[in-house]
Amino acid sequence: MSELSNALLQEIVEEVRPLTREGRVADYIPALAGVDPHQLGIAIHTPDGRCFQAGDATTRFSIQSISKVLSLTVALTLYEDAEIWQRVGKEPSGQPFNSLVQLELEQGKPRNPFINAGALVMCDLLESRLTAPRQRMLEFVRRLAQQPDIHYDRVVARSEYEHSARNAAIAWLMKSFGNFHNDVSKVMETYFHYCALSMNCCELARAFLYLASHGCSPHDGGTVITPRQARQVNALMMTSGMYDGAGEFAWRVGMPAKSGVGGGIVAFIPGEMSIAVWSPALDHAGNSLAGTALLEKLTERLGRSIF
Amino acid sequence: MSELSNALLQEIVEEVRPLTREGRVADYIPALAGVDPHQLGIAIHTPDGRCFQAGDATTRFSIQSISKVLSLTVALTLYEDAEIWQRVGKEPSGQPFNSLVQLELEQGKPRNPFINAGALVMCDLLESRLTAPRQRMLEFVRRLAQQPDIHYDRVVARSEYEHSARNAAIAWLMKSFGNFHNDVSKVMETYFHYCALSMNCCELARAFLYLASHGCSPHDGGTVITPRQARQVNALMMTSGMYDGAGEFAWRVGMPAKSGVGGGIVAFIPGEMSIAVWSPALDHAGNSLAGTALLEKLTERLGRSIF
Amino acid sequence: MSELSNALLQEIVEEVRPLTREGRVADYIPALAGVDPHQLGIAIHTPDGRCFQAGDATTRFSIQSISKVLSLTVALTLYEDAEIWQRVGKEPSGQPFNSLVQLELEQGKPRNPFINAGALVMCDLLESRLTAPRQRMLEFVRRLAQQPDIHYDRVVARSEYEHSARNAAIAWLMKSFGNFHNDVSKVMETYFHYCALSMNCCELARAFLYLASHGCSPHDGGTVITPRQARQVNALMMTSGMYDGAGEFAWRVGMPAKSGVGGGIVAFIPGEMSIAVWSPALDHAGNSLAGTALLEKLTERLGRSIF
Amino acid sequence: MSELSNALLQEIVEEVRPLTREGRVADYIPALAGVDPHQLGIAIHTPDGRCFQAGDATTRFSIQSISKVLSLTVALTLYEDAEIWQRVGKEPSGQPFNSLVQLELEQGKPRNPFINAGALVMCDLLESRLTAPRQRMLEFVRRLAQQPDIHYDRVVARSEYEHSARNAAIAWLMKSFGNFHNDVSKVMETYFHYCALSMNCCELARAFLYLASHGCSPHDGGTVITPRQARQVNALMMTSGMYDGAGEFAWRVGMPAKSGVGGGIVAFIPGEMSIAVWSPALDHAGNSLAGTALLEKLTERLGRSIF
Repeated sequence: MSELSNALLQEIVEEVRPLTREGRVADYIPALAGVDPHQLGIAIHTPDGRCFQAGDATTRFSIQSISKVLSLTVALTLYEDAEIWQRVGKEPSGQPFNSLVQLELEQGKPRNPFINAGALVMCDLLESRLTAPRQRMLEFVRRLAQQPDIHYDRVVARSEYEHSARNAAIAWLMKSFGNFHNDVSKVMETYFHYCALSMNCCELARAFLYLASHGCSPHDGGTVITPRQARQVNALMMTSGMYDGAGEFAWRVGMPAKSGVGGGIVAFIPGEMSIAVWSPALDHAGNSLAGTALLEKLTERLGRSIF
Repeated sequence: MSELSNALLQEIVEEVRPLTREGRVADYIPALAGVDPHQLGIAIHTPDGRCFQAGDATTRFSIQSISKVLSLTVALTLYEDAEIWQRVGKEPSGQPFNSLVQLELEQGKPRNPFINAGALVMCDLLESRLTAPRQRMLEFVRRLAQQPDIHYDRVVARSEYEHSARNAAIAWLMKSFGNFHNDVSKVMETYFHYCALSMNCCELARAFLYLASHGCSPHDGGTVITPRQARQVNALMMTSGMYDGAGEFAWRVGMPAKSGVGGGIVAFIPGEMSIAVWSPALDHAGNSLAGTALLEKLTERLGRSIF
Repeated sequence: MSELSNALLQEIVEEVRPLTREGRVADYIPALAGVDPHQLGIAIHTPDGRCFQAGDATTRFSIQSISKVLSLTVALTLYEDAEIWQRVGKEPSGQPFNSLVQLELEQGKPRNPFINAGALVMCDLLESRLTAPRQRMLEFVRRLAQQPDIHYDRVVARSEYEHSARNAAIAWLMKSFGNFHNDVSKVMETYFHYCALSMNCCELARAFLYLASHGCSPHDGGTVITPRQARQVNALMMTSGMYDGAGEFAWRVGMPAKSGVGGGIVAFIPGEMSIAVWSPALDHAGNSLAGTALLEKLTERLGRSIF
Repeated sequence: MSELSNALLQEIVEEVRPLTREGRVADYIPALAGVDPHQLGIAIHTPDGRCFQAGDATTRFSIQSISKVLSLTVALTLYEDAEIWQRVGKEPSGQPFNSLVQLELEQGKPRNPFINAGALVMCDLLESRLTAPRQRMLEFVRRLAQQPDIHYDRVVARSEYEHSARNAAIAWLMKSFGNFHNDVSKVMETYFHYCALSMNCCELARAFLYLASHGCSPHDGGTVITPRQARQVNALMMTSGMYDGAGEFAWRVGMPAKSGVGGGIVAFIPGEMSIAVWSPALDHAGNSLAGTALLEKLTERLGRSIF
């Protein structure tokens, strides 16, 4: 077994880099389609303050659905548990991330907060309680990442909004079942801004360290969520964090994780480390192809997963 | 945090026992419907040879779908990985355990080996390679549990077979897609015998210890499956082991686990312990209601889950 | 067999009137929920200029989905066949009238022009070619019914619009597949105005006479659509005109027909008569309960259906 | 408009014959796959005893699903209406003819007697009341067609049985819901024999004349079913007789009809004529491509449909 080190990360980045030629960059919006697919980066932060990185770990990208963990986290700080879970489930969907079939059969209640429907409900919850949900998220992320310079990529946010018909259909369907309370356009705009957060692997690994640290952000010692909530969010990522590839990912990598179509993945060994990888080209399930391979190789070399 | 001890188990059994009045015993076959719902037991085995128990831990019951882990394990010892995973997936189903909808949409390939369709494919694989799959399973389980006296409950097996129309439909549908090779009746009879294995919590915790011990059966030092396979089976239980309640179970308990409609659940903290609980009354997802509560309480008291 | 006469109609209205106590008035918008359910009317027009009526045949009501035949008719006059039928199908849906499941599986192409999705596409087609689609429809209907005093019920139209979340979801889903070209809100407003046309049985039977007269409006001798198109629209009503009750309706009544949740039904014996019935309370499929019974009785007494 | 004559039929057969090069012969069983696709025939019988024919009207073929009308007809003579319609619906399915999805969602009740599931229920009903359902059907058809020499094609029946996995899945699924009472294998064997009836266009047009004659078989003056039942069966064919192409067929041809994958179609103008066409190559919905075109041309030339 190897020890965690920059050299180790460097080594596996080199081994995996050929895989960046496979897969497909998300192309449903121009702003994503133009990204160079051959990039690959990794960063790891530990609760005791060490950090490691290799490859393109300081290049920013669109975090996309990784932001769904952030909107759930903020919702957990604003609402009682029951208020959240009566409006969204905790089960894997067994369906593509943006399917309406299950949403209709299950009367407008999304399967979990990590599919689009569920994240839209989270944003709707935030809209109801926050006066400036976009600004609030920025402040939250900047504090977690200890980086005041994090911004929304407005080109991406705009582009998403212009291709938002499917998400509008989802939101209106939930509204028809009474599970969406605010203005659809307004909430979608917040949702797309969250997706358009632009961060790099180092910033992500640091920002999400609270999920490897029992809910605490070690940088300022502050509690983000309770230890129990941190366990629960990890559990939810384990079963539903990787779209319709959660089972395969658990099988290969064995860590709770959340991916985005920008090619980023955050993954965790609770108590030990917060990991962020990035490579833009995606596999058939919409998860970073080389990023997943990088995480798999890491578990093999460290001899560590949660299983 | 508490230490693992018989006293601790005794204590949480008493705390949880009132919950045995809730839920419903499986009643689709008479042989299960007659079981006294107020029973509750737990047993834990550790890789270093300690064992603990409380409540009705030595009363045998029908292990039902817990046997799906055994049939997958045997298949893993008989086939190359690719031979297995081209015929069954690794993803949560997002559907009731015996639904045909997804099976038809996905052309006869079951979502995972822990739904009925997937387990029938495992039994079909075993049928193709073993001359006496029922006898072989008995020998396998007896060796794992170090207990030569384990048997099939023939009344249960017969009763299942007489109520097997839904499973026959599933098998025939897979046959229509070319994903079922042997005689439907013959394989179903093997399948129902596996479900009708009669074991108690102590026997289950000991038999399944290999999944908490990197694939080794500590009793005789023998390798059952490789460490990687053990990790993988745990991952699969994490995402798909609890029917359509896997997300909720991960959220509350945070362990890979597999349940059966007989009211049993096996659960694992890899490297640390193999746990078996039993209480016959089920929640709406078909998992033991009091058994799940017992596991939840255990993780709270030990301060241990995999997250 | 009886001859067509006011006395005959009067007789069957009396026989059927007790059934107005069964069924349920549509209550998804307040403007419909308030209608007195005990009303029942019928009017018949023939190509040779005779007309008959009985019961509440001159009370106006909201024609609702009956307008879907009108929007299809107008679309047939504005577009080539292929332009229409590449965007909407001709098959029964086998689903509730406002389901999104099939629409998603079939990539945004509605099954037929008589479910909501299909009618929204018709309105989208009209929006693309007409400068004032609402005014144009009014003029069209007024001419067909020879009645300059037909109007939209603005209270109903407004009420529909305020409860339009499901239809918005449908329109946005089609937009996500590229099958909706204009502004969703604008088209929906036109759609709801069409639904809110307020007409009585006599006006309906006269307006729709062209479907019993090979596409000609006998009042002014003008061609509305070609004889072939008239046959085709009748065929489409036969297979898809009565929501998910088309088979049962064909079985009992045996005429092409279109119903609306306002309790109206128009039905046809091509070449012989155009019939409009009305009674507000609906059966489980959303068709007028007493209205259907009235048509069934009429076919029995006349010894006439299309079969 | 043309008069019905052998010359007219001859003429349209020649016009349509080039279309026999398009489409695909059913190939799921070898016995059907081997048929020469370039054959095309038509026969018409009228209630007043005239008969017309052209093309390959005396070549026998496998009537396949056309037999579903016969099994419904026999069931109507053996059971009260309610006994039949509580076990099978009357609505179009909106699904492929052998789908299990809707059958599961609707708890084992087939949508109508003309999809496989519904026809299997009809055969199950016959099995419960008849001692020799296969022999009885032969006698029934021989009498209707006035032809003692009609037989089952045993090669086809055997071949179907050997490829019956999908139908077995359907039958077992219905059994799991309590909607299938007899032995699955036994009923399937009857079902496949009915499908394997070997008849030519002339025999079919004569045998089915009762559906154009108010339920009477004009040859011997005997009542097959009541006039009301004849209207109802025609209505059912109109909405559900052409698989998932019923709407398109009604649109183009405008007659109640039932097709089989052997390439045969029976169609009706009630009170006027019974028509049988045959050409083996099928369109995407599974209906005879040239056969449908032949019927369409016939309606144009005669200026007659039911609309």
